[in-house]
Amino acid sequence: MTGKLIGVGLGPGDPELMTLKAARLIASAPVIAYPALPGTESFARRIAAAHIAPGTREIVMDVPMTRERAPAQAAYDLGAARIAEALESGHDVVVLCEGDPFLYGSFMYLHARLRGRFPVEVVPGVTSLTAAAARAERPLAARNESFAVLPATLDDASLRRRLGEADSAAILKVGRQLARLRVLLGEMGLLEQAVYVEHASLPGEVVLPLAEAPDPAPYFSIILVTKGADPWLKPRS
Amino acid sequence: MTGKLIGVGLGPGDPELMTLKAARLIASAPVIAYPALPGTESFARRIAAAHIAPGTREIVMDVPMTRERAPAQAAYDLGAARIAEALESGHDVVVLCEGDPFLYGSFMYLHARLRGRFPVEVVPGVTSLTAAAARAERPLAARNESFAVLPATLDDASLRRRLGEADSAAILKVGRQLARLRVLLGEMGLLEQAVYVEHASLPGEVVLPLAEAPDPAPYFSIILVTKGADPWLKPRS
Repeated sequence: MTGKLIGVGLGPGDPELMTLKAARLIASAPVIAYPALPGTESFARRIAAAHIAPGTREIVMDVPMTRERAPAQAAYDLGAARIAEALESGHDVVVLCEGDPFLYGSFMYLHARLRGRFPVEVVPGVTSLTAAAARAERPLAARNESFAVLPATLDDASLRRRLGEADSAAILKVGRQLARLRVLLGEMGLLEQAVYVEHASLPGEVVLPLAEAPDPAPYFSIILVTKGADPWLKPRS
Repeated sequence: MTGKLIGVGLGPGDPELMTLKAARLIASAPVIAYPALPGTESFARRIAAAHIAPGTREIVMDVPMTRERAPAQAAYDLGAARIAEALESGHDVVVLCEGDPFLYGSFMYLHARLRGRFPVEVVPGVTSLTAAAARAERPLAARNESFAVLPATLDDASLRRRLGEADSAAILKVGRQLARLRVLLGEMGLLEQAVYVEHASLPGEVVLPLAEAPDPAPYFSIILVTKGADPWLKPRS
Protein backbone atom coordinates (compact mmCIF):
# COMPACT_ATOMS: atom_id res chain seq x y z
CA MET A 1 0.00 0.00 0.00
CA THR A 2 1.37 3.39 -0.99
CA GLY A 3 0.63 6.51 1.02
CA LYS A 4 -1.65 9.38 -0.01
CA LEU A 5 -0.42 12.71 -1.35
CA ILE A 6 -2.37 15.41 0.49
CA GLY A 7 -2.14 19.06 -0.59
CA VAL A 8 -3.36 21.31 2.17
CA GLY A 9 -4.23 25.00 1.83
CA LEU A 10 -3.11 27.02 4.85
CA GLY A 11 -4.93 30.26 4.09
CA PRO A 12 -3.48 33.75 3.64
CA GLY A 13 -1.15 33.86 6.63
CA ASP A 14 -3.03 34.27 9.91
CA PRO A 15 -2.74 30.75 11.41
CA GLU A 16 -6.36 31.02 12.58
CA LEU A 17 -7.51 31.24 8.96
CA MET A 18 -6.47 27.62 8.45
CA THR A 19 -9.35 25.13 8.18
CA LEU A 20 -10.12 22.60 10.90
CA LYS A 21 -9.33 19.88 8.35
CA ALA A 22 -5.91 21.31 7.55
CA ALA A 23 -5.06 21.52 11.25
CA ARG A 24 -6.16 17.92 11.83
CA LEU A 25 -4.26 16.53 8.83
CA ILE A 26 -1.07 18.39 9.72
CA ALA A 27 -1.23 17.22 13.34
CA SER A 28 -1.58 13.55 12.32
CA ALA A 29 0.83 13.56 9.35
CA PRO A 30 3.77 11.16 9.51
CA VAL A 31 5.53 13.29 6.85
CA ILE A 32 5.07 16.94 5.86
CA ALA A 33 6.64 18.72 2.90
CA TYR A 34 6.87 22.43 2.13
CA PRO A 35 8.76 24.96 0.01
CA ALA A 36 11.17 27.52 1.42
CA LEU A 37 13.16 30.32 -0.14
CA PRO A 38 16.77 29.13 0.23
CA GLY A 39 18.29 30.36 3.48
CA THR A 40 15.00 31.54 4.99
CA GLU A 41 12.33 30.10 7.24
CA SER A 42 9.46 28.62 5.24
CA PHE A 43 6.40 30.86 5.38
CA ALA A 44 4.13 27.83 4.92
CA ARG A 45 5.78 26.03 7.82
CA ARG A 46 5.46 29.12 10.01
CA ILE A 47 1.68 29.28 9.41
CA ALA A 48 1.31 25.59 10.30
CA ALA A 49 3.85 25.46 13.14
CA ALA A 50 1.45 25.11 16.09
CA HIS A 51 -0.02 21.91 14.61
CA ILE A 52 3.16 20.03 13.67
CA ALA A 53 3.70 17.15 16.11
CA PRO A 54 7.17 16.42 17.51
CA GLY A 55 8.84 13.66 15.48
CA THR A 56 7.06 14.52 12.21
CA ARG A 57 9.43 13.98 9.29
CA GLU A 58 9.90 17.16 7.26
CA ILE A 59 10.82 17.38 3.59
CA VAL A 60 12.02 20.91 2.81
CA MET A 61 12.10 22.02 -0.82
CA ASP A 62 14.47 24.93 -1.40
CA VAL A 63 12.75 26.77 -4.23
CA PRO A 64 14.67 29.78 -5.53
CA MET A 65 12.66 32.75 -6.84
CA THR A 66 14.35 33.42 -10.16
CA ARG A 67 13.22 34.73 -13.51
CA GLU A 68 14.36 31.54 -15.24
CA ARG A 69 12.20 28.56 -14.54
CA ALA A 70 14.82 25.81 -14.56
CA PRO A 71 16.11 26.22 -10.97
CA ALA A 72 12.63 26.11 -9.45
CA GLN A 73 11.59 23.26 -11.73
CA ALA A 74 14.64 21.32 -10.60
CA ALA A 75 13.69 22.00 -6.97
CA TYR A 76 10.18 20.61 -7.55
CA ASP A 77 11.60 17.62 -9.45
CA LEU A 78 13.82 16.83 -6.47
CA GLY A 79 11.02 17.48 -3.97
CA ALA A 80 8.65 15.24 -5.90
CA ALA A 81 11.22 12.45 -5.92
CA ARG A 82 11.69 12.67 -2.16
CA ILE A 83 7.93 12.78 -1.58
CA ALA A 84 7.45 9.80 -3.92
CA GLU A 85 9.93 7.81 -1.88
CA ALA A 86 7.95 8.46 1.31
CA LEU A 87 4.65 7.61 -0.42
CA GLU A 88 6.12 4.39 -1.81
CA SER A 89 7.13 3.31 1.67
CA GLY A 90 3.48 3.66 2.72
CA HIS A 91 3.48 7.04 4.46
CA ASP A 92 0.94 9.75 3.74
CA VAL A 93 2.62 13.07 2.90
CA VAL A 94 0.91 16.36 3.75
CA VAL A 95 2.18 19.18 1.53
CA LEU A 96 1.80 22.61 3.16
CA CYS A 97 0.67 25.31 0.78
CA GLU A 98 0.04 29.02 1.43
CA GLY A 99 -3.46 30.13 0.39
CA ASP A 100 -5.25 27.54 -1.71
CA PRO A 101 -3.37 24.63 -3.35
CA PHE A 102 -4.94 25.12 -6.81
CA LEU A 103 -5.14 28.91 -7.07
CA TYR A 104 -1.54 30.03 -7.59
CA GLY A 105 -0.44 27.44 -5.02
CA SER A 106 2.90 25.68 -5.09
CA PHE A 107 1.18 22.31 -4.64
CA MET A 108 0.26 22.38 -8.35
CA TYR A 109 3.87 21.69 -9.29
CA LEU A 110 4.02 18.57 -7.14
CA HIS A 111 0.57 17.43 -8.24
CA ALA A 112 1.66 17.65 -11.90
CA ARG A 113 4.66 15.45 -11.12
CA LEU A 114 2.96 12.83 -8.93
CA ARG A 115 -0.67 12.52 -10.07
CA GLY A 116 -1.64 9.16 -11.48
CA ARG A 117 1.07 7.40 -9.46
CA PHE A 118 -0.43 7.92 -5.99
CA PRO A 119 -3.85 8.60 -4.46
CA VAL A 120 -4.34 12.35 -4.08
CA GLU A 121 -6.45 14.56 -1.82
CA VAL A 122 -6.60 18.33 -2.10
CA VAL A 123 -7.88 20.41 0.83
CA PRO A 124 -8.90 23.91 -0.26
CA GLY A 125 -7.87 26.96 1.74
CA VAL A 126 -8.85 30.61 2.16
CA THR A 127 -7.25 32.63 -0.64
CA SER A 128 -5.48 35.97 -0.23
CA LEU A 129 -8.14 37.43 -2.56
CA THR A 130 -11.06 37.03 -0.22
CA ALA A 131 -8.81 37.80 2.76
CA ALA A 132 -7.91 41.11 1.12
CA ALA A 133 -11.57 41.87 0.43
CA ALA A 134 -12.46 41.06 4.04
CA ARG A 135 -9.75 43.32 5.46
CA ALA A 136 -10.53 46.16 3.03
CA GLU A 137 -14.27 45.66 3.68
CA ARG A 138 -14.93 45.56 -0.07
CA PRO A 139 -17.56 43.09 -1.31
CA LEU A 140 -16.28 41.42 -4.50
CA ALA A 141 -19.35 40.09 -6.30
CA ALA A 142 -23.05 39.56 -5.63
CA ARG A 143 -25.81 37.67 -7.42
CA ASN A 144 -25.10 37.71 -11.17
CA GLU A 145 -21.95 39.82 -11.08
CA SER A 146 -18.66 38.63 -12.53
CA PHE A 147 -15.18 38.75 -11.06
CA ALA A 148 -11.77 38.68 -12.76
CA VAL A 149 -8.42 37.67 -11.30
CA LEU A 150 -5.72 39.34 -13.36
CA PRO A 151 -1.92 39.25 -13.08
CA ALA A 152 -0.36 42.71 -13.05
CA THR A 153 1.93 41.69 -15.91
CA LEU A 154 -0.94 41.77 -18.45
CA ASP A 155 -0.46 44.54 -21.01
CA ASP A 156 -2.49 47.77 -20.84
CA ALA A 157 -4.88 46.82 -23.63
CA SER A 158 -5.78 43.46 -22.03
CA LEU A 159 -6.15 44.97 -18.58
CA ARG A 160 -8.32 47.76 -19.92
CA ARG A 161 -10.63 45.35 -21.76
CA ARG A 162 -10.94 42.87 -18.93
CA LEU A 163 -11.32 45.45 -16.17
CA GLY A 164 -13.94 47.11 -18.34
CA GLU A 165 -15.98 43.93 -18.66
CA ALA A 166 -15.79 42.49 -15.15
CA ASP A 167 -17.95 43.84 -12.32
CA SER A 168 -15.02 43.48 -9.95
CA ALA A 169 -11.40 42.44 -10.24
CA ALA A 170 -8.31 41.59 -8.25
CA ILE A 171 -4.96 42.47 -9.77
CA LEU A 172 -2.26 40.21 -8.36
CA LYS A 173 1.50 40.45 -7.91
CA VAL A 174 1.46 44.23 -8.23
CA GLY A 175 5.12 44.92 -7.34
CA ARG A 176 6.83 47.18 -9.87
CA GLN A 177 3.64 47.53 -11.94
CA LEU A 178 2.04 49.79 -9.35
CA ALA A 179 2.68 53.14 -11.04
CA ARG A 180 1.50 51.84 -14.42
CA LEU A 181 -1.66 50.37 -12.88
CA ARG A 182 -2.43 53.59 -11.04
CA VAL A 183 -2.25 55.57 -14.28
CA LEU A 184 -4.37 53.03 -16.13
CA LEU A 185 -7.06 52.84 -13.45
CA GLY A 186 -7.07 56.62 -13.22
CA GLU A 187 -7.64 56.89 -16.97
CA MET A 188 -10.50 54.41 -16.68
CA GLY A 189 -12.13 56.47 -13.92
CA LEU A 190 -11.68 53.59 -11.46
CA LEU A 191 -9.20 55.11 -9.00
CA GLU A 192 -11.81 55.65 -6.30
CA GLN A 193 -13.02 52.07 -6.57
CA ALA A 194 -9.46 50.72 -6.23
CA VAL A 195 -7.93 49.67 -2.94
CA TYR A 196 -4.40 48.45 -2.29
CA VAL A 197 -3.79 45.52 0.09
CA GLU A 198 -0.54 43.93 1.20
CA HIS A 199 -0.07 41.08 3.69
CA ALA A 200 -3.80 40.64 4.35
CA SER A 201 -4.40 39.01 7.77
CA LEU A 202 -0.72 39.27 8.78
CA PRO A 203 0.93 41.60 11.32
CA GLY A 204 2.46 43.73 8.52
CA GLU A 205 -0.92 44.23 6.83
CA VAL A 206 -1.46 47.42 4.81
CA VAL A 207 -4.83 48.56 3.41
CA LEU A 208 -4.82 51.89 1.54
CA PRO A 209 -6.68 53.74 -1.18
CA LEU A 210 -4.70 52.99 -4.36
CA ALA A 211 -3.81 56.67 -4.66
CA GLU A 212 -1.77 56.39 -1.43
CA ALA A 213 -0.10 53.02 -2.07
CA PRO A 214 3.72 52.68 -1.90
CA ASP A 215 5.62 52.56 -5.22
CA PRO A 216 7.16 50.13 -5.94
CA ALA A 217 4.90 47.79 -4.00
CA PRO A 218 6.02 44.42 -2.65
CA TYR A 219 5.63 41.61 -5.21
CA PHE A 220 2.75 39.85 -3.44
CA SER A 221 0.46 42.84 -3.11
CA ILE A 222 -3.06 43.10 -4.50
CA ILE A 223 -5.26 45.80 -5.98
CA LEU A 224 -9.00 45.24 -5.64
CA VAL A 225 -11.24 47.07 -8.07
CA THR A 226 -14.82 46.85 -6.90
CA LYS A 227 -17.17 48.40 -9.40
CA GLY A 228 -19.89 45.95 -8.46
CA ALA A 229 -22.78 47.92 -7.12
CA ASP A 230 -25.65 45.51 -7.29
CA PRO A 231 -28.62 47.59 -6.16
CA TRP A 232 -29.77 44.66 -4.07
CA LEU A 233 -26.90 45.46 -1.76
CA LYS A 234 -28.70 48.60 -0.75
CA PRO A 235 -31.61 48.81 1.67
CA ARG A 236 -35.01 49.39 0.07
CA SER A 237 -35.74 52.72 1.70
CA MET B 1 -20.45 50.48 23.97
CA THR B 2 -22.13 48.86 20.98
CA GLY B 3 -21.32 45.31 19.90
CA LYS B 4 -19.34 44.28 16.83
CA LEU B 5 -20.90 42.95 13.62
CA ILE B 6 -18.87 39.89 12.61
CA GLY B 7 -19.46 38.24 9.25
CA VAL B 8 -18.02 34.74 9.24
CA GLY B 9 -17.40 32.56 6.17
CA LEU B 10 -18.25 28.90 6.84
CA GLY B 11 -16.72 27.41 3.70
CA PRO B 12 -18.41 25.30 1.01
CA GLY B 13 -20.34 22.88 3.23
CA ASP B 14 -18.08 20.31 4.85
CA PRO B 15 -18.00 21.55 8.48
CA GLU B 16 -14.28 20.70 8.61
CA LEU B 17 -13.60 23.28 5.90
CA MET B 18 -14.48 26.04 8.37
CA THR B 19 -11.55 28.08 9.65
CA LEU B 20 -10.29 27.82 13.21
CA LYS B 21 -11.25 31.48 13.64
CA ALA B 22 -14.82 30.92 12.47
CA ALA B 23 -15.21 28.00 14.88
CA ARG B 24 -13.85 30.06 17.79
CA LEU B 25 -16.03 33.10 17.07
CA ILE B 26 -19.19 31.01 16.68
CA ALA B 27 -18.50 29.14 19.93
CA SER B 28 -18.10 32.35 21.92
CA ALA B 29 -20.84 34.42 20.25
CA PRO B 30 -23.61 35.75 22.49
CA VAL B 31 -25.81 36.18 19.39
CA ILE B 32 -25.67 34.50 15.99
CA ALA B 33 -27.71 35.38 12.89
CA TYR B 34 -28.22 33.44 9.68
CA PRO B 35 -30.48 33.20 6.64
CA ALA B 36 -32.85 30.31 5.97
CA LEU B 37 -35.17 29.46 3.12
CA PRO B 38 -38.64 29.80 4.70
CA GLY B 39 -39.79 26.48 6.15
CA THR B 40 -36.40 24.77 5.84
CA GLU B 41 -33.42 24.22 8.08
CA SER B 42 -30.74 26.87 7.50
CA PHE B 43 -27.80 25.41 5.54
CA ALA B 44 -25.45 27.91 7.18
CA ARG B 45 -26.61 26.89 10.66
CA ARG B 46 -26.20 23.21 9.79
CA ILE B 47 -22.54 23.76 8.79
CA ALA B 48 -21.86 25.62 12.05
CA ALA B 49 -24.02 23.46 14.36
CA ALA B 50 -21.25 21.66 16.26
CA HIS B 51 -19.80 24.98 17.46
CA ILE B 52 -22.96 26.75 18.62
CA ALA B 53 -23.03 26.87 22.44
CA PRO B 54 -26.25 26.13 24.34
CA GLY B 55 -28.02 29.37 25.23
CA THR B 56 -26.71 31.32 22.23
CA ARG B 57 -29.38 33.70 21.00
CA GLU B 58 -30.28 33.03 17.35
CA ILE B 59 -31.67 35.54 14.85
CA VAL B 60 -33.15 33.68 11.88
CA MET B 61 -33.73 35.61 8.67
CA ASP B 62 -36.32 33.94 6.44
CA VAL B 63 -35.07 34.90 2.98
CA PRO B 64 -37.31 33.71 0.13
CA MET B 65 -35.62 32.82 -3.17
CA THR B 66 -37.75 34.71 -5.66
CA ARG B 67 -37.11 36.35 -8.99
CA GLU B 68 -38.31 39.70 -7.64
CA ARG B 69 -35.92 41.32 -5.25
CA ALA B 70 -38.34 43.04 -2.92
CA PRO B 71 -39.22 40.06 -0.67
CA ALA B 72 -35.57 39.19 -0.02
CA GLN B 73 -34.68 42.85 0.44
CA ALA B 74 -37.43 43.15 3.00
CA ALA B 75 -36.08 40.06 4.80
CA TYR B 76 -32.62 41.62 5.00
CA ASP B 77 -34.09 44.95 6.11
CA LEU B 78 -35.87 43.16 8.95
CA GLY B 79 -32.81 41.03 9.80
CA ALA B 80 -30.59 44.11 9.86
CA ALA B 81 -33.00 45.85 12.23
CA ARG B 82 -33.00 42.90 14.65
CA ILE B 83 -29.21 42.62 14.48
CA ALA B 84 -28.87 46.37 15.05
CA GLU B 85 -30.97 46.06 18.19
CA ALA B 86 -28.63 43.36 19.58
CA LEU B 87 -25.55 45.42 18.65
CA GLU B 88 -26.99 48.51 20.29
CA SER B 89 -27.51 46.61 23.52
CA GLY B 90 -23.78 45.83 23.51
CA HIS B 91 -23.72 42.26 22.17
CA ASP B 92 -21.45 41.11 19.36
CA VAL B 93 -23.41 39.40 16.57
CA VAL B 94 -21.79 36.67 14.49
CA VAL B 95 -23.46 36.34 11.09
CA LEU B 96 -23.08 32.85 9.58
CA CYS B 97 -22.40 32.85 5.87
CA GLU B 98 -21.89 29.91 3.49
CA GLY B 99 -18.64 30.13 1.54
CA ASP B 100 -16.97 33.54 1.83
CA PRO B 101 -18.87 36.59 3.12
CA PHE B 102 -17.79 38.89 0.27
CA LEU B 103 -17.84 36.53 -2.75
CA TYR B 104 -21.53 35.97 -3.45
CA GLY B 105 -22.14 35.76 0.31
CA SER B 106 -25.37 36.81 1.99
CA PHE B 107 -23.43 38.85 4.55
CA MET B 108 -22.98 41.58 1.92
CA TYR B 109 -26.64 42.52 2.25
CA LEU B 110 -26.35 43.03 6.01
CA HIS B 111 -23.01 44.81 5.69
CA ALA B 112 -24.57 47.27 3.24
CA ARG B 113 -27.31 48.03 5.75
CA LEU B 114 -25.22 48.27 8.93
CA ARG B 115 -21.75 49.53 7.97
CA GLY B 116 -20.77 52.87 9.38
CA ARG B 117 -23.11 52.43 12.34
CA PHE B 118 -21.22 49.60 14.09
CA PRO B 119 -17.67 48.20 14.18
CA VAL B 120 -17.34 45.42 11.59
CA GLU B 121 -15.09 42.40 11.21
CA VAL B 122 -15.18 40.09 8.20
CA VAL B 123 -13.66 36.60 8.45
CA PRO B 124 -12.97 35.10 5.02
CA GLY B 125 -13.90 31.52 4.22
CA VAL B 126 -13.10 28.81 1.68
CA THR B 127 -15.15 29.42 -1.47
CA SER B 128 -17.03 26.77 -3.44
CA LEU B 129 -14.78 27.67 -6.40
CA THR B 130 -11.56 26.37 -4.92
CA ALA B 131 -13.45 23.52 -3.22
CA ALA B 132 -14.75 22.46 -6.65
CA ALA B 133 -11.24 22.66 -8.13
CA ALA B 134 -9.87 20.59 -5.25
CA ARG B 135 -12.50 17.87 -5.63
CA ALA B 136 -12.19 17.79 -9.43
CA GLU B 137 -8.38 17.86 -9.10
CA ARG B 138 -8.20 20.72 -11.57
CA PRO B 139 -5.60 23.45 -10.92
CA LEU B 140 -7.17 26.85 -11.64
CA ALA B 141 -4.29 29.25 -12.24
CA ALA B 142 -0.51 29.33 -11.88
CA ARG B 143 2.12 32.05 -12.04
CA ASN B 144 0.94 34.76 -14.46
CA GLU B 145 -2.29 33.10 -15.55
CA SER B 146 -5.66 34.81 -15.22
CA PHE B 147 -8.92 33.44 -13.88
CA ALA B 148 -12.52 34.55 -14.54
CA VAL B 149 -15.60 33.97 -12.41
CA LEU B 150 -18.63 34.23 -14.66
CA PRO B 151 -22.34 33.87 -13.93
CA ALA B 152 -24.08 31.41 -16.27
CA THR B 153 -26.64 34.08 -17.13
CA LEU B 154 -24.13 36.07 -19.24
CA ASP B 155 -25.06 36.06 -22.93
CA ASP B 156 -23.21 33.87 -25.43
CA ALA B 157 -21.14 36.71 -26.88
CA SER B 158 -19.86 37.83 -23.45
CA LEU B 159 -19.14 34.29 -22.32
CA ARG B 160 -17.32 33.52 -25.55
CA ARG B 161 -15.14 36.64 -25.27
CA ARG B 162 -14.35 36.22 -21.61
CA LEU B 163 -13.76 32.47 -21.73
CA GLY B 164 -11.52 33.09 -24.72
CA GLU B 165 -9.38 35.59 -22.86
CA ALA B 166 -9.04 33.96 -19.44
CA ASP B 167 -6.62 31.10 -18.83
CA SER B 168 -9.22 29.42 -16.62
CA ALA B 169 -12.77 30.14 -15.59
CA ALA B 170 -15.52 29.08 -13.26
CA ILE B 171 -19.09 29.42 -14.49
CA LEU B 172 -21.46 29.75 -11.55
CA LYS B 173 -25.15 29.05 -10.96
CA VAL B 174 -25.36 26.75 -13.96
CA GLY B 175 -28.90 25.41 -13.41
CA ARG B 176 -31.03 25.67 -16.54
CA GLN B 177 -28.17 27.13 -18.56
CA LEU B 178 -26.37 23.80 -18.72
CA ALA B 179 -27.42 22.75 -22.24
CA ARG B 180 -26.59 26.18 -23.67
CA LEU B 181 -23.18 26.22 -21.96
CA ARG B 182 -22.38 22.73 -23.21
CA VAL B 183 -23.07 23.77 -26.81
CA LEU B 184 -21.06 26.97 -26.43
CA LEU B 185 -18.03 25.27 -24.83
CA GLY B 186 -18.21 22.56 -27.50
CA GLU B 187 -18.13 25.18 -30.24
CA MET B 188 -15.12 26.78 -28.55
CA GLY B 189 -13.29 23.44 -28.45
CA LEU B 190 -13.27 23.55 -24.66
CA LEU B 191 -15.48 20.57 -23.83
CA GLU B 192 -12.61 18.36 -22.76
CA GLN B 193 -11.24 21.04 -20.45
CA ALA B 194 -14.65 21.50 -18.79
CA VAL B 195 -15.69 19.71 -15.64
CA TYR B 196 -19.05 19.85 -13.87
CA VAL B 197 -19.19 20.05 -10.05
CA GLU B 198 -22.17 20.10 -7.74
CA HIS B 199 -22.17 20.16 -3.91
CA ALA B 200 -18.37 20.17 -3.63
CA SER B 201 -17.24 18.78 -0.24
CA LEU B 202 -20.79 17.65 0.70
CA PRO B 203 -22.22 14.11 0.88
CA GLY B 204 -24.21 14.65 -2.36
CA GLU B 205 -21.11 15.76 -4.26
CA VAL B 206 -21.01 15.14 -8.04
CA VAL B 207 -17.91 15.60 -10.23
CA LEU B 208 -18.34 14.74 -13.94
CA PRO B 209 -16.96 15.59 -17.34
CA LEU B 210 -19.27 18.32 -18.64
CA ALA B 211 -20.39 16.01 -21.45
CA GLU B 212 -22.00 13.72 -18.82
CA ALA B 213 -23.54 16.37 -16.56
CA PRO B 214 -27.27 16.29 -15.72
CA ASP B 215 -29.57 18.70 -17.57
CA PRO B 216 -31.06 20.76 -16.07
CA ALA B 217 -28.45 21.03 -13.36
CA PRO B 218 -29.18 22.26 -9.82
CA TYR B 219 -28.96 26.05 -9.50
CA PHE B 220 -25.80 26.08 -7.38
CA SER B 221 -23.64 23.95 -9.66
CA ILE B 222 -20.35 25.00 -11.22
CA ILE B 223 -18.50 24.39 -14.48
CA LEU B 224 -14.73 24.73 -14.30
CA VAL B 225 -12.92 25.42 -17.55
CA THR B 226 -9.21 24.90 -17.04
CA LYS B 227 -7.30 25.82 -20.14
CA GLY B 228 -4.34 26.95 -18.06
CA ALA B 229 -1.43 24.76 -18.98
CA ASP B 230 1.50 26.70 -17.67
CA PRO B 231 4.50 24.67 -18.85
CA TRP B 232 6.05 25.13 -15.44
CA LEU B 233 3.47 22.71 -14.14
CA LYS B 234 5.21 19.93 -16.01
CA PRO B 235 8.38 18.20 -14.91
CA ARG B 236 11.51 19.19 -16.83
CA SER B 237 12.32 15.77 -18.26
